[in-house]
Amino acid sequence: ATEPSASINSKEPSAFPAGQKFHLEDVIEAQQFNREILSAIFEVAQQMEMIEKDPVGVQILRGHLMATLFYEPSTRTRLSFESAMKRLGGEVLTTENAREFSSAAKGETLEDTIRTVEGYSDIIVLRHFESGAARQAAAVANIPIINAGDGPGQHPTQALLDMYTIQRENGRLDDIEVALVGDLANGRTVRSLAYLLAKYNNVKIYFVGPDVVKMKDDIKNYLTLKGVEWEESTDLMEVASKCDVVYQTRIQRERFGERIDLYNEARGKYIIDKKVMNVLQKHAVIMHPLPRLDEIMVDVDTDPRAAYFRQAKNGLYIRMALLKLLLLGW
Amino acid sequence: ATEPSASINSKEPSAFPAGQKFHLEDVIEAQQFNREILSAIFEVAQQMEMIEKDPVGVQILRGHLMATLFYEPSTRTRLSFESAMKRLGGEVLTTENAREFSSAAKGETLEDTIRTVEGYSDIIVLRHFESGAARQAAAVANIPIINAGDGPGQHPTQALLDMYTIQRENGRLDDIEVALVGDLANGRTVRSLAYLLAKYNNVKIYFVGPDVVKMKDDIKNYLTLKGVEWEESTDLMEVASKCDVVYQTRIQRERFGERIDLYNEARGKYIIDKKVMNVLQKHAVIMHPLPRLDEIMVDVDTDPRAAYFRQAKNGLYIRMALLKLLLLGW
Amino acid sequence: ATEPSASINSKEPSAFPAGQKFHLEDVIEAQQFNREILSAIFEVAQQMEMIEKDPVGVQILRGHLMATLFYEPSTRTRLSFESAMKRLGGEVLTTENAREFSSAAKGETLEDTIRTVEGYSDIIVLRHFESGAARQAAAVANIPIINAGDGPGQHPTQALLDMYTIQRENGRLDDIEVALVGDLANGRTVRSLAYLLAKYNNVKIYFVGPDVVKMKDDIKNYLTLKGVEWEESTDLMEVASKCDVVYQTRIQRERFGERIDLYNEARGKYIIDKKVMNVLQKHAVIMHPLPRLDEIMVDVDTDPRAAYFRQAKNGLYIRMALLKLLLLGW
Repeated sequence: ATEPSASINSKEPSAFPAGQKFHLEDVIEAQQFNREILSAIFEVAQQMEMIEKDPVGVQILRGHLMATLFYEPSTRTRLSFESAMKRLGGEVLTTENAREFSSAAKGETLEDTIRTVEGYSDIIVLRHFESGAARQAAAVANIPIINAGDGPGQHPTQALLDMYTIQRENGRLDDIEVALVGDLANGRTVRSLAYLLAKYNNVKIYFVGPDVVKMKDDIKNYLTLKGVEWEESTDLMEVASKCDVVYQTRIQRERFGERIDLYNEARGKYIIDKKVMNVLQKHAVIMHPLPRLDEIMVDVDTDPRAAYFRQAKNGLYIRMALLKLLLLGW
Repeated sequence: ATEPSASINSKEPSAFPAGQKFHLEDVIEAQQFNREILSAIFEVAQQMEMIEKDPVGVQILRGHLMATLFYEPSTRTRLSFESAMKRLGGEVLTTENAREFSSAAKGETLEDTIRTVEGYSDIIVLRHFESGAARQAAAVANIPIINAGDGPGQHPTQALLDMYTIQRENGRLDDIEVALVGDLANGRTVRSLAYLLAKYNNVKIYFVGPDVVKMKDDIKNYLTLKGVEWEESTDLMEVASKCDVVYQTRIQRERFGERIDLYNEARGKYIIDKKVMNVLQKHAVIMHPLPRLDEIMVDVDTDPRAAYFRQAKNGLYIRMALLKLLLLGW
Repeated sequence: ATEPSASINSKEPSAFPAGQKFHLEDVIEAQQFNREILSAIFEVAQQMEMIEKDPVGVQILRGHLMATLFYEPSTRTRLSFESAMKRLGGEVLTTENAREFSSAAKGETLEDTIRTVEGYSDIIVLRHFESGAARQAAAVANIPIINAGDGPGQHPTQALLDMYTIQRENGRLDDIEVALVGDLANGRTVRSLAYLLAKYNNVKIYFVGPDVVKMKDDIKNYLTLKGVEWEESTDLMEVASKCDVVYQTRIQRERFGERIDLYNEARGKYIIDKKVMNVLQKHAVIMHPLPRLDEIMVDVDTDPRAAYFRQAKNGLYIRMALLKLLLLGW
């Protein structure tokens, strides 16, 4: 499951000339990254953990302006990007609900909106309700576009922060066993994660999902093709006892429509509680993209292996890294 | 009605070592302040009046990030906090309507939201529709929380700016006579004010409210217990002629439901107009928490004793002072 | 159509003492500008094009705070103003929907809101749904007010950026022929533009609008009075072949109510397409205030004479210039 070698050498990234324009021009989808680029991004993200501790001293994005153009609300993602920009000394133009954007309401195309907003900013973070919107925006923009989620499509910075968290918590991305738990049919995070994990060596994935929201065949086939071992299980305790990472997700009520009975059945099926923590290995961690309802019990939060709030925080470092790379280069 | 001596000596605050962490960790409710702490806050607020005049020179909160997490809109309060932060060189992350916060809508607890947002910021200003929300947030947060109003509960920075205004306009908080006028049953500002005034010596309070919205017994009993003289009156002219401060409030239509007749009767009963100003003492002032409807006539605005816009401005200084104290210490 | 000479000499603006308070105190309506002031604003706007390229170096508005008080959403205009302020090192307080402003909802007057907000900021950019609101605000404010559109009334910064674009693209404002196309009855931009063009010499205006939305008599009479030549035409090709500027506008569906048939008829009548571009003179340009629907075909965008995105960008420079002039003077 490795990628062909790329121009960024992950072993000696400093060999890469400083200030050279990072060869990413936009961040559109998880698939665009190979493991060398992931490694480079993660290295910068880790530098950002240091920078965040001394925000007054480091203002590397001073004078740069980011526009957050959100066609649907996602306060968590928006605040994370805006914090990232401001932690680096940059400035932000915000649109919390661009859908009510007077010009969008009047029928303006996304392309025209992007051409206008790029005149006011240096980078655009786009959240949209339609799959493919980010790619569409990037095609016309002369400044970098970051996809902050486009409908049922992609949310690449979430995928990056998930991978970064596994590496930070676990020390490696090769030779790991990962359980993906919960809503595997609808959750784009678990799908992206499976995709990115396939780029690493000797990864084993367990799918633990209620019958009505099982992982779809396209991902399973992709993993098989890439030589990634995977298996479906209904025994969370057994899986939890042998994995390095248990990635829990919320059952998405909105996907069940009228069938509240099915929702309730699915929702209660696989819960992370103290009993699961008791069988979890000492070095292993629980992750969750948040928000959570009760699929992880609150009394698990104080366990050091509960990594989900650290994971949320890693979103800040990943976004700082991307902003730095896209605006200043390597 | 004095408090036991506290660690801040209001007479010689500079004896207090510079940079020492102010022993307030959060601002949750008016009751948490004793007169020594009030005095210290007011001293810093007055320094802020100077700093505001030279905003370029003073950037003491540069590199600090405040998140305004508002679960109900309160633009006046939000702008005041954000202005305070920016006047001190700090930066702001804004959420104008956190209730539509995608994660709140999906059922995330306030605690989880706070744990996430504290990863992106250095201090959280919380406005919530539920009483007790600020305390709940402070219980889990590792960064300071400021309560910017939690439902029918507390709005401590309003109480502080009211007290600061009385001191600034009047020169003292002991030995004063204050009339509280208007909606005394529902207004949390007058209730907090009564509570804080009880910490000072030789204070007399007049309640002048329509029958349907009279001051409730809990506050009256509290004042009696603390030895504060109070009296109810229906004669605004007579009261206005002897008070140092006349604190007018808006009759809140939303509290009357269908009974518009009662609302209209209450609303027209006690109006500050030129006639009231004619009997008001020369040194006395009119205050109002704003917004006002017609309970203060517009032709009163030009009278130098109309202090309500100065009072609104004092909200800026108080919030600057609190941000400075919570983030940098004394 | 020239104005009486004013205190700003457009030929030698540097004769004007540096730092002198620009004698504009507010920006309320297009009519307030004479050609000398326009010339001075345009000169500063052109300096801003240089400043924007080095945003880190120039922070002339550092420590200044702008409040954008928008009673109706207009994201394009808001972002343009906020970008302008931030490009100059200033800070921004934002209210995307001041109409839901808790205090406005409670019945507070605009005057009271302005008196409060001016305590938190150095300049207010006001967008309002009622004609005359900006003038009303300026009457009570002690800080500069910029009208960012007040209902069917004025939108002076749009008028300024339109005029600036004609000068930038065309090299002059005297001796030009301009076609105003599309919705001439309802579009305030074309009305303001006609008004301002009348201040220049030897201007000829062509009105090319569907019958149902023809230019109204008040503007025609005004032009005649000022000695400006104008003529109505139904032949866009013929007009386009001889003008220096073709200013296209969107037919505003919202003005047609139930009469969708009339809307559709008007909408398809005058379209800028490749055929029009083929007859357009080499030096001429197409302008549009944006957003556009299909009144300019997308395949025209790549033609260098398509000036509308440059025009949108000029909005940034004009707003930077106004902020500089109002806050720092000449």
